[in-house]
Amino acid sequence: MTFLLDKTLNKDSVAMGEFTLCRLLLMNDSQFPWFVLVPMREDKSEVYQLSDKDQSQLWLESRLLSVALMDLYKGDKLNIAAIGNVVSQLHLHHVVRFKEDACWPKPIWGQLPMKAYNTDHVEKIKQSLLAPLGVFGFSEL
Amino acid sequence: MTFLLDKTLNKDSVAMGEFTLCRLLLMNDSQFPWFVLVPMREDKSEVYQLSDKDQSQLWLESRLLSVALMDLYKGDKLNIAAIGNVVSQLHLHHVVRFKEDACWPKPIWGQLPMKAYNTDHVEKIKQSLLAPLGVFGFSEL
Repeated sequence: MTFLLDKTLNKDSVAMGEFTLCRLLLMNDSQFPWFVLVPMREDKSEVYQLSDKDQSQLWLESRLLSVALMDLYKGDKLNIAAIGNVVSQLHLHHVVRFKEDACWPKPIWGQLPMKAYNTDHVEKIKQSLLAPLGVFGFSEL
Repeated sequence: MTFLLDKTLNKDSVAMGEFTLCRLLLMNDSQFPWFVLVPMREDKSEVYQLSDKDQSQLWLESRLLSVALMDLYKGDKLNIAAIGNVVSQLHLHHVVRFKEDACWPKPIWGQLPMKAYNTDHVEKIKQSLLAPLGVFGFSEL
């Protein structure tokens, strides 16, 4: 399979692992628990351009991720979005929101400069996700 | 079925019709082709809180709507999002975006005051959607 992650996504994130269809990225912004699912398919920019089977799989992976994230972070709201006005490679944001976070109640996109995590924190997050999601076909790269 | 549309959504939109699961709203903002699917279920604020069957149906209706909207408007990008930080009733935005629109490339939420449509325009949009979607279980209220 020849899957190339978009350069901007690659620069701004850390890979957490892969589901069957999607690579899971942690956006390197410690202000929000902000994750992105990227279907490992070439030349897709809209959800409806995926095959029927891939769309079902995308929403299954989104659901598994959503439940795991809300259990882990105990957020007030989950924001899910396929925007892609800047990065055309299809990607699906999952952002755990808190009523006390830096952007609430606005959406986070394009609001604040990113603040990088330290490496230890990223590794902890990865391990926290592998525990619940490993049994559902999610694994490290 | 006792489904009550959230008051803010009701005030800011015009009902276009209903699919099996969702009511379809046109947001009353003529700056963007901005539609919202609202699952007709009580007390849901997150996609993953819907039953398995309802989640599948939501994404099917989203897909049908997405294809119909992009065919109708010939947009440059479709933005799909479940945000809900302000209105907690589960609702799924579908916004057709153009590289020349008033917010490009930013997401539209919370950016500009809404500019209402005239009534004739709204009726035309409704008829344009009934044509392709009517065969897929979408009907007027």
